[in-house]
Amino acid sequence: MSVTDELLGNAERYAATFDKGHLPLPPARHVAVLACMDARLNPYGLLGLAEGDAHVIRNAGGVVTADELRSLAISQRLLGTTEIILIHHTDCGMLTFTDDGFKASIEAELGIKPAWAAEAFTDLEADVRQSIGRILADPFIPVKDSVRGFVYEVETGKLREVS
Amino acid sequence: MSVTDELLGNAERYAATFDKGHLPLPPARHVAVLACMDARLNPYGLLGLAEGDAHVIRNAGGVVTADELRSLAISQRLLGTTEIILIHHTDCGMLTFTDDGFKASIEAELGIKPAWAAEAFTDLEADVRQSIGRILADPFIPVKDSVRGFVYEVETGKLREVS
Repeated sequence: MSVTDELLGNAERYAATFDKGHLPLPPARHVAVLACMDARLNPYGLLGLAEGDAHVIRNAGGVVTADELRSLAISQRLLGTTEIILIHHTDCGMLTFTDDGFKASIEAELGIKPAWAAEAFTDLEADVRQSIGRILADPFIPVKDSVRGFVYEVETGKLREVS
Repeated sequence: MSVTDELLGNAERYAATFDKGHLPLPPARHVAVLACMDARLNPYGLLGLAEGDAHVIRNAGGVVTADELRSLAISQRLLGTTEIILIHHTDCGMLTFTDDGFKASIEAELGIKPAWAAEAFTDLEADVRQSIGRILADPFIPVKDSVRGFVYEVETGKLREVS
């Protein structure tokens, strides 16, 4: 049995006691969270989010690329969110390689390399500021008075703000 | 007090009882989940995921663009995941507009329009297949023998596979 099959068993149990079929499409708390995809970072547990509360956008690093700007524009313009919470974290995989090295290893294997930037970084706090800056610089996200960035400490469970 | 400040209070409570500081960087279940950012779709509750189990990638629609291919390549190549679970859902915001209409409304307001595709869709199952197809067509994701797509029903809590 694959892990996917096993998780589908969990999904059957979730549906068996499901009582949230009445929730509306727009997030109740008007918040969009953008966080790293890391397995140890659970935005629901960490921020106390329940079904219906917030948009959650995630990728490798919790970085801001064109697709996150797309998601945030849709979140604010069509679904009424007004606050943005960015979360990077300690011990991130993105700190363990360089764009050049990663792409060279792929090219060595396949003969071609991706056209995308891998978005690796060397300084967590600086990359949180980079993410905030990219959002502030984007012309298509209308509400920017609450764009705040944080580092989650996977060792302690603590969330600290980047100023 | 902003909603962000309120959620930071929840984060303090999470840290106060935190006991997961020992978890390793690679996901224990070797799975990457790619799901819509929708507030009603909680991959942790639905799939029974705990901290440390799986990469979770999310965006507006749960679609596959360059950034999701980047995250999946990093997930598999650097952190050892081998199964991919794609989740779209009923009553999705992406079913409520068109790319042309959304971008025209932005252009009417700002005089310029985004260079990105909004990735709206009209058929849930077809877009799940589109997402699977984009992953299968990508040369940089190495493991493709378990790429499965699902529709989550926000009305019933059920997850059904798209074949």
